Amino acid sequence: MARKESPSVPTTPLLKDELDIVIPTIRNLDFLEMWRPFFQPYHLIIVQDGDPSKTINVPEGFDYELYNRNDINRILGPKANCISFKDSACRCFGYMVSKKKYIYTIDDDCFVAKDPSGKEINALEQHIKNLLCPATPFFFNTLYDPYREGADFVRGYPFSLREGAPTAVSHGLWLNIPDYDAPTQLVKPRERNARYVDAVLTIPKGTLFPMCGMNLGFDRELIGPAMYFGLMGDGQPIGRYDDMWAGWCVKVICDHLGLGVKTGLPYIWHSKASNPFVNLKKEYNGIFWQEEMIPFFQAVVLPKECSTVQKCYIELSKQVREKLGKIDPYFNKLADAMVTWIEAWDELNPSGAANGTAKGK
Amino acid sequence: MARKESPSVPTTPLLKDELDIVIPTIRNLDFLEMWRPFFQPYHLIIVQDGDPSKTINVPEGFDYELYNRNDINRILGPKANCISFKDSACRCFGYMVSKKKYIYTIDDDCFVAKDPSGKEINALEQHIKNLLCPATPFFFNTLYDPYREGADFVRGYPFSLREGAPTAVSHGLWLNIPDYDAPTQLVKPRERNARYVDAVLTIPKGTLFPMCGMNLGFDRELIGPAMYFGLMGDGQPIGRYDDMWAGWCVKVICDHLGLGVKTGLPYIWHSKASNPFVNLKKEYNGIFWQEEMIPFFQAVVLPKECSTVQKCYIELSKQVREKLGKIDPYFNKLADAMVTWIEAWDELNPSGAANGTAKGK
Repeated sequence: MARKESPSVPTTPLLKDELDIVIPTIRNLDFLEMWRPFFQPYHLIIVQDGDPSKTINVPEGFDYELYNRNDINRILGPKANCISFKDSACRCFGYMVSKKKYIYTIDDDCFVAKDPSGKEINALEQHIKNLLCPATPFFFNTLYDPYREGADFVRGYPFSLREGAPTAVSHGLWLNIPDYDAPTQLVKPRERNARYVDAVLTIPKGTLFPMCGMNLGFDRELIGPAMYFGLMGDGQPIGRYDDMWAGWCVKVICDHLGLGVKTGLPYIWHSKASNPFVNLKKEYNGIFWQEEMIPFFQAVVLPKECSTVQKCYIELSKQVREKLGKIDPYFNKLADAMVTWIEAWDELNPSGAANGTAKGK
Repeated sequence: MARKESPSVPTTPLLKDELDIVIPTIRNLDFLEMWRPFFQPYHLIIVQDGDPSKTINVPEGFDYELYNRNDINRILGPKANCISFKDSACRCFGYMVSKKKYIYTIDDDCFVAKDPSGKEINALEQHIKNLLCPATPFFFNTLYDPYREGADFVRGYPFSLREGAPTAVSHGLWLNIPDYDAPTQLVKPRERNARYVDAVLTIPKGTLFPMCGMNLGFDRELIGPAMYFGLMGDGQPIGRYDDMWAGWCVKVICDHLGLGVKTGLPYIWHSKASNPFVNLKKEYNGIFWQEEMIPFFQAVVLPKECSTVQKCYIELSKQVREKLGKIDPYFNKLADAMVTWIEAWDELNPSGAANGTAKGK
């Protein structure tokens, strides 16, 4: 683990001391050069995947800590088995060791996108805005985010709901390479996303969505313990469902606790499509399993006693074992890992462990 | 009732013989001049509100039928009491007398908007596109409409849901004057909507939204009998909730029947804010009542036997009487009118009456 201080800090970056940027990687982090004006004031948590003997170069001037597999094993001991290896799911270790209220996580093949006027998009700033203003999960506003400048709640929106709910998650999108599954990549190898949709919206209560981990912000205090990216990659029968799994768990828990999840702005520029043949191999089981996972998550009911994220998550692990364990023994292993994750989280975050961290509406 | 034939018809307008444009009005329809290139191929149904002795001028070259209050009374007899007077809610009479599969309805203070490139928006064409391609009410797609060119379902979207559901409603938006309630109009007299959001999205199953009747398309065969705009205006304790009422009824019935509701594109240019003081008087009761109406609609469960829109709507009228009748006697009158509306609909649309018209998923 290394730490360096940044020499030049721009004026008043939002939440400078309250947010960590988590980056999973297997290579040198040259992509940070392009993000320098936006990221340099913030602290980075780099989770090195794969061979721990490899040296990851981080550009000069960034303030960071870096964890490789040896660090993870040393810090978590036997509980390290809940952290995936050879899969970007390992990033959730960074959420666990952070001591900040907010997390932004980004992939190392994501670059700064431009808005239609040609201006470079400060993705982090938009995520922070999304997280700091309320969400509207209980009723749909047709003019999108009612808290945005120039917008409001439209006629017919109940006044009692206009205070909104605390925002737990800000899900950003991607220009250029869209986040497609392997079959869609194979069928549409040349498709690029060129449509900039100038909107942020709350995903309504009761609705599931595919949460992508490429460009994602969240409030660690509100929802952190549910941001577990599951067991993927090395030794597991599935990959590329890490963020999806987290998203489905997070959404049912946010719905239960009265927290909001937003999607839309900001965009990043996703530079390179991953190999669709490799992806198909990773996704293969997930493509079948998700047909049963989605109805499972759509039907999940959490009892009233589940008043904290941790309690919700442990309850969810039980239901996973009971209902999804029938599909494949993998889900029993995953249910165990969900419990281990919470134990490890509480060990590293003792202040939030007793009463839990989230206080929903 | 008058009828005129259009002299010049552009090439291959979509659904030319399957769609009626319904316009409620109290004045000359000069606004149609601006819409001529887009609307002239279609048949118009004009519902004249207010004094029936007044003559409404329709620009040359449009093919239309016009109904005033005397026509409505003559056609519906005693059942005419379900059609509002001195309120744009009267427009729903036009839905009832239409013989077409699709309806587009627009207010006479709505003009052609321009997209960010400066091109005039053919709102009707976009509504038709929205209605002709499926909706996705069962799971949220983060890249918005997956059927649009250049877009698709993202990773994690269950393959079994990618066929989508039939689209029953296309709800368009407004540039310039947003559709605000009286309190918001009073507080933000100068607010204008200048944000063009280039998206169409499906409102998820189980989520209610404020449906505005200013710029609205729907499939009459799928959902027509639920598009009742209620009792508003003259002699009623409420106004400006006509479209909201219809939207809440339509949404719970679409959810029950497995039909989709879309919102977003197209935009029209809403030219003039209505008087907020007059609006406050009309909305006053609704502002209180909607606080009970929304939880009512959120909790509505329709039994399986309700397999047609008519059956759903009659069942809904019973629940309105039972649950909302306690708030104010108005809701008993409204429940009666809901039944009368269905009787009148079935009388004018005998082919769809017996088995109902909607076949959902």
